[in-house]
Amino acid sequence: MSFEEYFPVFNKLTPEEKDCLINSVSLKRIKKGTIVHNGNDDCLGLLLIISGQLRAYILSEEGREITIFRLFSRDMCLFSASCMMKNIQFDITVTAEKDTEAWFIPVDIYKSLMENSAVIANYTNDIIGTRFTDVVWLIEQIMWKSFDKRLALFLKEESSIEGTERLEITHEKIASHLGTAREVVTRMLKYFQGEKVVSLSRGIVEITDMKKLSEMSE
Amino acid sequence: MSFEEYFPVFNKLTPEEKDCLINSVSLKRIKKGTIVHNGNDDCLGLLLIISGQLRAYILSEEGREITIFRLFSRDMCLFSASCMMKNIQFDITVTAEKDTEAWFIPVDIYKSLMENSAVIANYTNDIIGTRFTDVVWLIEQIMWKSFDKRLALFLKEESSIEGTERLEITHEKIASHLGTAREVVTRMLKYFQGEKVVSLSRGIVEITDMKKLSEMSE
Repeated sequence: MSFEEYFPVFNKLTPEEKDCLINSVSLKRIKKGTIVHNGNDDCLGLLLIISGQLRAYILSEEGREITIFRLFSRDMCLFSASCMMKNIQFDITVTAEKDTEAWFIPVDIYKSLMENSAVIANYTNDIIGTRFTDVVWLIEQIMWKSFDKRLALFLKEESSIEGTERLEITHEKIASHLGTAREVVTRMLKYFQGEKVVSLSRGIVEITDMKKLSEMSE
Repeated sequence: MSFEEYFPVFNKLTPEEKDCLINSVSLKRIKKGTIVHNGNDDCLGLLLIISGQLRAYILSEEGREITIFRLFSRDMCLFSASCMMKNIQFDITVTAEKDTEAWFIPVDIYKSLMENSAVIANYTNDIIGTRFTDVVWLIEQIMWKSFDKRLALFLKEESSIEGTERLEITHEKIASHLGTAREVVTRMLKYFQGEKVVSLSRGIVEITDMKKLSEMSE
């Protein structure tokens, strides 16, 4: 599918703006595991995802991670161009969780369009609003949801994203998503196993009772 | 001081936009303790603070609070008009922590200006970016900073805002800012008192060793 069909406000742009975008976008293929954006070190441009999956997380000084949001097909990754937003003053890392194909828009092109076009500026606003909502939701989770519920919800979502109840994921990886230590994840998964909700083997968490897992997440 | 001097991008607007704003803004006086915005129930408009102090917080189902940001002179309160941003989908409450004077801009006026003006849309973007940074900072605090450090930092900031080392604040109120239970605050304050960093009396926390408090917050 063409860029025009992926960029939601394309039809509202002027002919000049359309030309400018069309002439500057390129198709990017990103291998699973690639670091797309690393803190404030780089500022390449925006990625409009065609297929695949990106993960944005923050890092503690000790190297602990917590996922702050994930992006899928038709989502726009703004933070790989966070230098264009002068008030965004935190370091975020974005990696490809799956092989990803995306439309790439260079930051200088997008920035100059945004400065002059109310349509693009408002579209950018909408995206930041969505990410803001993700982040406030995360605070609510961390503050007021016990860890067993957060873990149950994570496994449920992961199963829905992957389309399988057999998840190929390590305890370490789950800990990085949820911002905790591996030992905490292992202990809780063993409790889930005792409750016959999951079955564990090396590098695999298999959900054996989705109904009960759903109940546990609420 | 006039609205023109408070609204940072006023000089970049067209004469029509300037007129439209000038003719629709009004001065609002808000008493300390007033709820300015309550979840998604209302959507009056934006507040550009002249003097005073607003506090934005989220609530758990059980009624626990956590402060997500505070606003001071020259800050713009967008969230009292969050209905104009369709992707902001969380309930935030905003109250006046002090008697506050602000320029009030009705939501329909601002919304129509923002839709047509790249200048106003980008200004709005900048504000959301600042609040986004506040919220990610809060996640870092909650996830990776132990409670003693968070409490020390809060007392230090509160002292700087109030311009005094004698803080008139209850343990309950501190708990609401930090998203914890009153008992947790009381226990930690008593520990601080034992360390001779604060002295406690009814409704008062007095900082007696600012240097040590600063060190504890790092």
